[in-house]
Amino acid sequence: MFLNRIERKITWGDLDSLCIVFYPKYYEWMDGCSHLYFEKIGLDLVKLWHERQLIFSLVSTSCDYFRPGRYHQEIIIETLMEELENKTVTMGHTIIDKLSGKIMVKGREKRICMNVHNLDQFSAMDIPVDLAQIFNSSP
Amino acid sequence: MFLNRIERKITWGDLDSLCIVFYPKYYEWMDGCSHLYFEKIGLDLVKLWHERQLIFSLVSTSCDYFRPGRYHQEIIIETLMEELENKTVTMGHTIIDKLSGKIMVKGREKRICMNVHNLDQFSAMDIPVDLAQIFNSSP
Amino acid sequence: MFLNRIERKITWGDLDSLCIVFYPKYYEWMDGCSHLYFEKIGLDLVKLWHERQLIFSLVSTSCDYFRPGRYHQEIIIETLMEELENKTVTMGHTIIDKLSGKIMVKGREKRICMNVHNLDQFSAMDIPVDLAQIFNSSP
Amino acid sequence: MFLNRIERKITWGDLDSLCIVFYPKYYEWMDGCSHLYFEKIGLDLVKLWHERQLIFSLVSTSCDYFRPGRYHQEIIIETLMEELENKTVTMGHTIIDKLSGKIMVKGREKRICMNVHNLDQFSAMDIPVDLAQIFNSSP
Repeated sequence: MFLNRIERKITWGDLDSLCIVFYPKYYEWMDGCSHLYFEKIGLDLVKLWHERQLIFSLVSTSCDYFRPGRYHQEIIIETLMEELENKTVTMGHTIIDKLSGKIMVKGREKRICMNVHNLDQFSAMDIPVDLAQIFNSSP
Repeated sequence: MFLNRIERKITWGDLDSLCIVFYPKYYEWMDGCSHLYFEKIGLDLVKLWHERQLIFSLVSTSCDYFRPGRYHQEIIIETLMEELENKTVTMGHTIIDKLSGKIMVKGREKRICMNVHNLDQFSAMDIPVDLAQIFNSSP
Repeated sequence: MFLNRIERKITWGDLDSLCIVFYPKYYEWMDGCSHLYFEKIGLDLVKLWHERQLIFSLVSTSCDYFRPGRYHQEIIIETLMEELENKTVTMGHTIIDKLSGKIMVKGREKRICMNVHNLDQFSAMDIPVDLAQIFNSSP
Repeated sequence: MFLNRIERKITWGDLDSLCIVFYPKYYEWMDGCSHLYFEKIGLDLVKLWHERQLIFSLVSTSCDYFRPGRYHQEIIIETLMEELENKTVTMGHTIIDKLSGKIMVKGREKRICMNVHNLDQFSAMDIPVDLAQIFNSSP
């Protein structure tokens, strides 16, 4: 299974008053990492939207928090596809402390294929066969 | 059961390129609404931290997305306590379109009582009896 | 001169590790308040974009910080138009502590009228006469 | 003069409904880059706070916007110290499109040395001699 690996450094603006990462930041990073995963397997989500009027919209998201992130800590975010169904794809993200290798956060995003030809009214659709093949064949 | 109700208006900066709310924003709002809920029942979380060295840190969070939020839409966020256990309290948030009354997002935050006397090493603790009473007796 | 007045309450997620507002948050709020100002005088910026392919894009922004914002502080944001030129409009924002009336932050956004018929290449344009009239006649 | 250089990739969550970077994001990045600049010259701002009760708080910030940032664009942020005065240090940031080398944004942060022994009441102070030397001798 293809796994995308991103490194980043926690910065001052990511922290709350307890000097630990404010949790919505983890979702911002995971969303970005899903887009980067898609790009790596050959799917530019903005091109897909503009050329084929389809997007992968969120059905549900979740996170479990094991260890807080701190100032200027180096972290790794590993992203992979956990499940592929007719209309949905579920991405899993693991955030790891680079130094110790310990898991800090585990998150999940379930995304549904949407026809957005009409931007005011999205409608769910089956993932097209060619895209499903790309997901399935990512090494 | 006490239910806290906040109104807000979605703004330009909350939106992504599809002109719908970028989902980490919902978590920012829900976090803020948990703090406001606590304040309403008489618990100032920053005072608790400074005076008693305890906080309610996140164990897990999740959201289900039913309808997208759009530019200058008026929304209501309803927050209540869903479950109280020895060490944890689970907050539930429902985000509603003010005009139609339709549910847009449902979210949940499980928070654990932490001793933060040492800011570098939080440790889980039982929710003190006086705080549990406040949670339980909120009308 | 028309002045738009918004109240908000600072929340946990707005704060940095010093327990004061992280300064980019002020810009998020000021941007939102410009949109609300425009709405109040009858200009829905998203409608303008969709119906007339014009937007008010940022040329420059600035802020001076006088007093830090703190947890659950009630603030007022006052927004007015400071200057109107052929192609640009400059919005001024004053953020005030509601309790004391003291000024916390003063900010400015210079916005330029852009033709966005082609989303990949914006081009500056004169503010149309009917819009300039709306700006000028706002009481 | 020492110049710190950071690379980053613009992600989906950085964009607004026009598919360009929402401008407060630039300030988030510049703030982070100031902290990284300080770290590179040997000043850990969180250590300075905890060990010597001093911080570099914002007096004023500003940005000029020349070219919009877009989806998955690679950018470079160059940070240097523009001016050192008794109490203040001014950081300059230039955001550059990596591919073309063209300047997208230029920003500035004026930071003042503050005694934060009492977190409820910051007071301006002269930059200590040893820190001024570090600033001045950064190659």
